[in-house]
Amino acid sequence: MRALHWDGSALRLAEVPAPTADAETAVVQVRRAGICNTDLELTRGYMGFRGVLGHELVGNVADGPAAWRGRRVVGEINFACGRCESCARGLARHCPARRVMGILNADGAFAEYVAVPVANLHAVPDGVSDAAAVFTEPLAAACEIVEQVRIAPGQRCVILGDGKLGLLAAQVLALAGGSVLAVGKHDAKLAILARRGIETVRLDAWDRARADVVVDATGSAAGLALALAATRPRGTLVLKSTVAAPATLTLAPLVIDEITVVGSRCGPFAPALRALAAGSVDVTSLIAARYPLRDGVEAMRHAAAPGMLKVVLESS
Amino acid sequence: MRALHWDGSALRLAEVPAPTADAETAVVQVRRAGICNTDLELTRGYMGFRGVLGHELVGNVADGPAAWRGRRVVGEINFACGRCESCARGLARHCPARRVMGILNADGAFAEYVAVPVANLHAVPDGVSDAAAVFTEPLAAACEIVEQVRIAPGQRCVILGDGKLGLLAAQVLALAGGSVLAVGKHDAKLAILARRGIETVRLDAWDRARADVVVDATGSAAGLALALAATRPRGTLVLKSTVAAPATLTLAPLVIDEITVVGSRCGPFAPALRALAAGSVDVTSLIAARYPLRDGVEAMRHAAAPGMLKVVLESS
Repeated sequence: MRALHWDGSALRLAEVPAPTADAETAVVQVRRAGICNTDLELTRGYMGFRGVLGHELVGNVADGPAAWRGRRVVGEINFACGRCESCARGLARHCPARRVMGILNADGAFAEYVAVPVANLHAVPDGVSDAAAVFTEPLAAACEIVEQVRIAPGQRCVILGDGKLGLLAAQVLALAGGSVLAVGKHDAKLAILARRGIETVRLDAWDRARADVVVDATGSAAGLALALAATRPRGTLVLKSTVAAPATLTLAPLVIDEITVVGSRCGPFAPALRALAAGSVDVTSLIAARYPLRDGVEAMRHAAAPGMLKVVLESS
Repeated sequence: MRALHWDGSALRLAEVPAPTADAETAVVQVRRAGICNTDLELTRGYMGFRGVLGHELVGNVADGPAAWRGRRVVGEINFACGRCESCARGLARHCPARRVMGILNADGAFAEYVAVPVANLHAVPDGVSDAAAVFTEPLAAACEIVEQVRIAPGQRCVILGDGKLGLLAAQVLALAGGSVLAVGKHDAKLAILARRGIETVRLDAWDRARADVVVDATGSAAGLALALAATRPRGTLVLKSTVAAPATLTLAPLVIDEITVVGSRCGPFAPALRALAAGSVDVTSLIAARYPLRDGVEAMRHAAAPGMLKVVLESS
């Protein structure tokens, strides 16, 4: 089959063996796959990954247990062992033996087919389009914030960064009842939130009033310092950016103001799918471009442009 | 009166005006005062403080409201305005207009007398010696950890650092029901904990197994990186060290492992006094040396020696 393969130095469309199914593994024929900043980081050496990229997808089960065959699905990306202490505690996403789709020891979804453990599959409700369903994984990552941090009604939440994750996080926190202010640099992106009734402000016009909960979705070390300064004493800073490079920070304010910093990564698919089915989150406005899989290298280049929103690969 | 005064460049025993009482302010005659690492930091420029140092004390109310006169007391160090949003929320220790005894816009307790708002006074139970009572403030800072982080019974807690705060934090977390392992470099200090039935290990012999709750009481940026590595996925790292210098950190593990970092500063005096009255925390073993106030400059020099435990100033 054709797949977008990273060999540690070059990204290319390659012919690779198709995955095979077994009692615990389904083969999913990919309909759409989204390019994430993590994919770009991987091609810069992050995680030392080699293989087929891609961890955001919607597709149909082509092979696997009969109960799943033919169904339209999305797949959780952490492939856990199911037997360790973390798995027993319900922390499968933190299984130390986990493989991660397109990120760690498992081929990904920028391909015609991808192998996904049956335990990781979720059926996509009929009312959710492919264009929306491909956002399940990043939307779940935004939902993770409200799994980890209680958002009290009306609590002042600031989302720093109007990239893909920031736009999703702002919508999820608003849904959860927060009084959300999204801070960004791009009028067109902030307008997506404004259309949903979410308050927005350009970074250069922001009064920097300190908030109860601040989400750093800037993807930069400088953003983190800004986020720290915008968190009120005893408030919570959610760190959503995976900044691979070391950051230099003065931590005294964190101690003096007794701020809680919550690292936040992958999230639960079920609430993300429910939000998509209810139409309560606008994801399709985040689509910047669509490419067929065969133009995947060009699509990745497009996705790497500064400030780019979601670039989606399509099977046909 | 005599006081240990820092003028921004020199520390010296000076003759300064004695404080005066009013309806809301008591004057406390200092019996004992403890030297804290923060005092040493202040003489290196931290906070830009100028004035009389000292924020750990026990004394007698010499002047002030009749109900307090003559009583043996300790004093909370954050002098809040009592009128702002933070104060209304019960976060007086975070009042943005606060003065802080011997640290910010308020003279401290390395003196014959110190002014303390009546609202900040706590009577010392008769059974608590002066030698123990002077530890109320640092013990309260250790109690703050269990105010902020729930310690479930038997939860694995690692305390990194066998300095004064580490020794107090280890005891408080053990009292709270945690399964505590204290990691340090000094056999004699760790022995204080071992005598209380707390498990200890030298840093060079530690297996670095990851714990549910890790307290960084090392006071160093290197300690923080070690603490982060010792925190299990979804675990909690309590940052107790005020490291004034910028620290360089790779934050990706914090996000990937979804670790929560809790900055922790001053704490509640009431539970600290209860623990002292019950004799459930050994504080007097932490006393390394005692000096009369007139030898305060020498006492500060002694306190600055590497690995020094508590140096106490005495009124006579």
